[in-house]
Amino acid sequence: MAQPRKTRTPRTGRRPGDSGSREAILEAARALFAEHGYSGTSMRAIGAAAGVDAALIVHFFGTKARLLREAIQWPFDPEEAAERVYAAGRHHVGEELARLVVETWESEGDRSAIMTLLRAATVEPAAADMLREFMQNELAPPLFQRLNPDHPELRASLATAQIIGLGMARYVVRLEPLASMTLDEVVAWIAPTLQRYLTGKAP
Amino acid sequence: MAQPRKTRTPRTGRRPGDSGSREAILEAARALFAEHGYSGTSMRAIGAAAGVDAALIVHFFGTKARLLREAIQWPFDPEEAAERVYAAGRHHVGEELARLVVETWESEGDRSAIMTLLRAATVEPAAADMLREFMQNELAPPLFQRLNPDHPELRASLATAQIIGLGMARYVVRLEPLASMTLDEVVAWIAPTLQRYLTGKAP
Repeated sequence: MAQPRKTRTPRTGRRPGDSGSREAILEAARALFAEHGYSGTSMRAIGAAAGVDAALIVHFFGTKARLLREAIQWPFDPEEAAERVYAAGRHHVGEELARLVVETWESEGDRSAIMTLLRAATVEPAAADMLREFMQNELAPPLFQRLNPDHPELRASLATAQIIGLGMARYVVRLEPLASMTLDEVVAWIAPTLQRYLTGKAP
Repeated sequence: MAQPRKTRTPRTGRRPGDSGSREAILEAARALFAEHGYSGTSMRAIGAAAGVDAALIVHFFGTKARLLREAIQWPFDPEEAAERVYAAGRHHVGEELARLVVETWESEGDRSAIMTLLRAATVEPAAADMLREFMQNELAPPLFQRLNPDHPELRASLATAQIIGLGMARYVVRLEPLASMTLDEVVAWIAPTLQRYLTGKAP
């Protein structure tokens, strides 16, 4: 695939001029996703706004989903995370998922990216659209929809609701004693809820 | 208790001049609670900011807790709500609580007051303090801490986390199909979670 060559010293995979283009693409993507939502934004439109060819976006990010993940600074790769969560088997998925979530929230940098998204979603409908599309299309299928053919999307949305609430209550509102509990204590309380949402009998 | 008399026609319980003072008190309370938190704000300070005697605040609102509830436009009285939630007995508390919450969120006016609080909490630490103090001190004791002598505050904070997450996911991010489910379907899925948090065995 043809790629613009702007730099003179291609010694490594990442060339000196790349970081500028890469950042311009991320900025354009953030602005367009926030304004038009994820499905309403094409790679071509992002390329045009960033002043680069769409092929360069593919070179840097592969897919639009991965570009979105980097634009919103989502802290983990959903596919890789799913490998870990499902390694221990169906009966441990609630616990492993709770652990992944709490560990991610514990890191202030990782947390602030997600908080920025949630805050934006409470103000801007397009930001809510973007977050919803990311959660439904990129996060839910690998992480929440593998186990149960019965209502997989519903189960995914319930698990996500519990996770969002845990994050808001523990780190934003800082309800006590939830805010001061250890990671293991939080996991022990939350795991059965996620396990039921993902694998339990529908009411 | 001495009360300023500003109006001439006290035909009813509410006098013509009252609404101005009442609104001034609410505005002063909102500003001071948001800046200094709930415990950091005295009735006297609110009276001074509103240009009225603290006794008038007591006349209008009774307690500081009730003033806070009106200032933030919290949509129900926690004590009255608790009467309803606990009427059906210990084994139905998850279901009744889920129903109260979803019915409250369904009303756009009631929802927007809570959303305003959550949004403010993600931006302003003092607003998060105010919301936390309201939830821990006014909402949790009557609604969440009656049933179990084992970790009552922890159980309350977990139930609140699930409720906040349900609100964010269903009405802000609008995750599907959770956002489109009927009230009864949501209650059926969420009730066992609240029941376990409030009455289940600690892990």
